[in-house]
Parts: sequence; structure tokens; C-alpha cells
Amino acid sequence: MFTNVEHIGIAVRDLATSNDLFSLLLNSQPYKAEEVASEGVMTSFFQVNQTKIELLAATRPDSPIATYLEKRGEGIHHLAFEVDDIRAEMERLKAAGFTLLNDVPKRGADNKLVCFLHPKTANGVLVELCQTIKQETL
Amino acid sequence: MFTNVEHIGIAVRDLATSNDLFSLLLNSQPYKAEEVASEGVMTSFFQVNQTKIELLAATRPDSPIATYLEKRGEGIHHLAFEVDDIRAEMERLKAAGFTLLNDVPKRGADNKLVCFLHPKTANGVLVELCQTIKQETL
Repeated sequence: MFTNVEHIGIAVRDLATSNDLFSLLLNSQPYKAEEVASEGVMTSFFQVNQTKIELLAATRPDSPIATYLEKRGEGIHHLAFEVDDIRAEMERLKAAGFTLLNDVPKRGADNKLVCFLHPKTANGVLVELCQTIKQETL
Repeated sequence: MFTNVEHIGIAVRDLATSNDLFSLLLNSQPYKAEEVASEGVMTSFFQVNQTKIELLAATRPDSPIATYLEKRGEGIHHLAFEVDDIRAEMERLKAAGFTLLNDVPKRGADNKLVCFLHPKTANGVLVELCQTIKQETL
């Protein structure tokens, strides 16, 4: 089940500059920064009610965020939903015709197991499923 | 104050096709369709916890959504925040250097007063502020 819009990921060129900009916009401060080395990104999180705004900056030229910025410029990069059972949702969505970008859940930022759906099968939207990692999830 | 991620707007070519796609993705049905004639859009809403997914299809060739689809293709179009006092937030953000696309709040879908911020001043993100219309708001 899709239980929440967990976060909206926004691709930015410079994390410090965009932290300042979003602090002004949201009138609040980021509560966390975290590197996801496997994806080549540094992230920064703002909280708005039950949803996070996740800024994403590339840490190396072959990062998916660097590729995105080159093609599309800064802007909304992906839309992430919290799900209660990521493996069950991955199976359901695969059977429904969506293309999964990873066959097994992988480790994302913010203590999550994640899976991405290809935008081609999701109306041009890069959709992320995520589930908070608990002891028994791994 | 920014009190919630009210909705994420997604530009689509064909509302019926995308309603089917998002019904499959979210495993739920849209709860409302509404035309915003002034913007040349037909909308469809899904609810995920406290946030809505708003599909947007153009109803005429000069609709902003038609222009967007031509330039960028289908995908995430804007990010909308609920605010408690739209006029106060518009004033605050204008003073902070953001470019407002309308100087006074205008009527949007779903019984809201809305104001858009230009993506150029907001990291490439088309930001919408919205406030639910109550008797005393007008």
C-alpha cells in the first residue's frame, strides 16, 4: 500500500546555494545532510508536515544527478512514496507493466529501502518506492 | 507558514489514459475531476495520505500545460504547498527575491486561492502556494 508522499527529490547544482534558497522559500532550515556514495549524491532534507523536500547534488561527474542536470537543468527530479511492503509493491507493479530500475530493494538515503520505476512507464515521472528499514526488514 | 505539501501536479497528454495508469500505480481511484477553464486544464485528483496527486491535461492549444508538454514532455509540472496565509507568504517571498507569477491570489482548482512562483527564482521548480477558501478568505 502507498501510505504517504515521503519526499520530493529536487536536482540542484550547488547544495549550499540551494539550501539557502529553500530555507528562504520554506522559512525553515534543513534538518539533515547525508551522502549516498553509491549514487554519487549529497542530499539535504527539509520537512514540511509529513513530507520531505530532498535536495540532491552530484558528487561526481557520472552521478545520475549530474546526467540529469546536463539534460534537463535544475528542477524536480523524482517523487517518492512510502509503502508498507516494498517487495509486495515491486511485485504488484512489475506484474502491472511498470519497469523497475532495480530488481531487489536497495539502500537509499534516510534509512530506507528503495526501488525506482522507469519514467517511461510512469508518465515521465521517476517514481521511487521507499520503506523505512527496521531490524526485521533486512 | 508552509503547512503541508498540498499536491504534486503532473502534466499528462491524455487524462483517461493517465487516470488508468495512476490508478494502477497508486492502487486507488481518482476521487475528483475538475476543469479550470481560466487555465485551460482539466484536472484529476488522487489522494495519498495528506497529499494529492493532481493530473493536468490541456483543454486548448494555448494552455500552459500544452506549452509545457511540447517543451518538456509528460512529467512533474509543479509542487504545491498549503500555506496558512497566502497574502502574507506572497509578501514575504517577494521581499526575499522570489518572482511571483501573479500579484494577487487567483482562483485555482479544488477550492483554493493560489499563487505561482517563477521557476527561474526557485531552482527550476514551479512552486504553487495555495490556501483553502473559506467564507472569510474572499
